Amino acid sequence: MTLPEGYTFRRLEVSDYSNNYLETLKTLTSVGNISEDQFKHLFEEWSRLPEIYNPHVITNPAGTVVATGMLLIERKLIHERGSVGHVEDISVAPSEQGKKLGLSMVNGLTELAEKKGCYKVILDCSEHNVRFYEKCGYIKGGTEMIKRFT
Amino acid sequence: MTLPEGYTFRRLEVSDYSNNYLETLKTLTSVGNISEDQFKHLFEEWSRLPEIYNPHVITNPAGTVVATGMLLIERKLIHERGSVGHVEDISVAPSEQGKKLGLSMVNGLTELAEKKGCYKVILDCSEHNVRFYEKCGYIKGGTEMIKRFT
Repeated sequence: MTLPEGYTFRRLEVSDYSNNYLETLKTLTSVGNISEDQFKHLFEEWSRLPEIYNPHVITNPAGTVVATGMLLIERKLIHERGSVGHVEDISVAPSEQGKKLGLSMVNGLTELAEKKGCYKVILDCSEHNVRFYEKCGYIKGGTEMIKRFT
Repeated sequence: MTLPEGYTFRRLEVSDYSNNYLETLKTLTSVGNISEDQFKHLFEEWSRLPEIYNPHVITNPAGTVVATGMLLIERKLIHERGSVGHVEDISVAPSEQGKKLGLSMVNGLTELAEKKGCYKVILDCSEHNVRFYEKCGYIKGGTEMIKRFT
């Protein structure tokens, strides 16, 4: 993974609540009003299960969060009790586009999945992002199917 | 969910190791040699995290496992700390095909996801299974992208 000078890829910290984490995620989809207590509660839930939840950020030279991503690791029985990584919720702050931070985030999470012993990593994306993920070394798999309740 | 008479949809039990669970999964993909101790270890890992891992089976009138499926529940920050269900590892024993057990399994896991408060359920499938999942109330989403390490 190559980052611009002064940028850092690291695990999410609880203090990122007031460090542009939610604002960056909002470029991806709706987040809603999350209080600091609610954030801490979820942060602790994720932190108690480091073998499953691996939330990461990229910070800029000022130390501000400018990209987000989650690696969720699923323990299966198939493939000799293999683990599968799921890459989720990749977002990049609009003011930081053009620096390949999305590529760095995906590459960082993909390397982490390999280091943690996953036999594969998967993710779902819209058709116009297929080319981007191919640049990250992914190939097309199947079709994502969705059922929404709300 | 409608099952043929005598068939039951239930959570996986540790005794299913010697009740055709692995053999049913093998119709889906390679499983490898899993000892009873290895199975118990993973079963306990899943059981410690019932808010995440929901492995299910369908048994036939003889009580034998003839279908499998997993609902993995992911806790996100987005969508007001919403949960997303991932339907994984659906398999049906070849001798029990034609009884719509796959449909019952997917419907059972989908209902469970809704009951557990997920705002959506997603899964990945091959193109020739799209029609099947449409019958389960799913619609096409994006494209699955994969990177394999082994």
